[in-house]
Amino acid sequence: MRRLHPDPEQIRLDGVLSALGNPVRLGVVRALTGGAERTCNSVLAELGITAKSTMTHHWRVLRENGVIWQVPSGRETLVSLRRDDLDARYPGLLDAVLTGIGVDETAS
Amino acid sequence: MRRLHPDPEQIRLDGVLSALGNPVRLGVVRALTGGAERTCNSVLAELGITAKSTMTHHWRVLRENGVIWQVPSGRETLVSLRRDDLDARYPGLLDAVLTGIGVDETAS
Repeated sequence: MRRLHPDPEQIRLDGVLSALGNPVRLGVVRALTGGAERTCNSVLAELGITAKSTMTHHWRVLRENGVIWQVPSGRETLVSLRRDDLDARYPGLLDAVLTGIGVDETAS
Repeated sequence: MRRLHPDPEQIRLDGVLSALGNPVRLGVVRALTGGAERTCNSVLAELGITAKSTMTHHWRVLRENGVIWQVPSGRETLVSLRRDDLDARYPGLLDAVLTGIGVDETAS
């Protein structure tokens, strides 16, 4: 069985980049940039996503590659960006990705 | 038919990250960091890769997402990193990725 969340030292660059290399998952990361825990549903609503079954896959990819925390809370699921862990291990990576999201948006 | 190489303004972040999100392709990027054009064969030799058919896929993914130039030269194929294009569009991204490759190597 795969672990729900990797420990910080188990995070690998190819996994993080692969997890980020998808427009929906980049949208999730941007939605979580503020740093606060959010419910999955509020993120989906912000992104205009209604297909929850597809999102189950995306949440799992982000979680198993160390990009997000995803924890149950009552009947909801809370998600947050593992910014501290990612910044500590890969300095500048997340900032460059977030800047890049803005570049693509401005260009398109 | 897909273009061989995207123009700089056609490069997209999710494509670049997806292309980089693989250990073999990260190895290629590191091998090309010096900036010079190299033959595909010399890169493969450095990485210890003998399965050329698998590499055809990896070269294509890197090329079509704007990460490398790949041009025929006589009976060889030359590859180089599109560092200028990537640095111009996504400042700091490639540097953070290259730093991250070193982090993973030191940790493992």
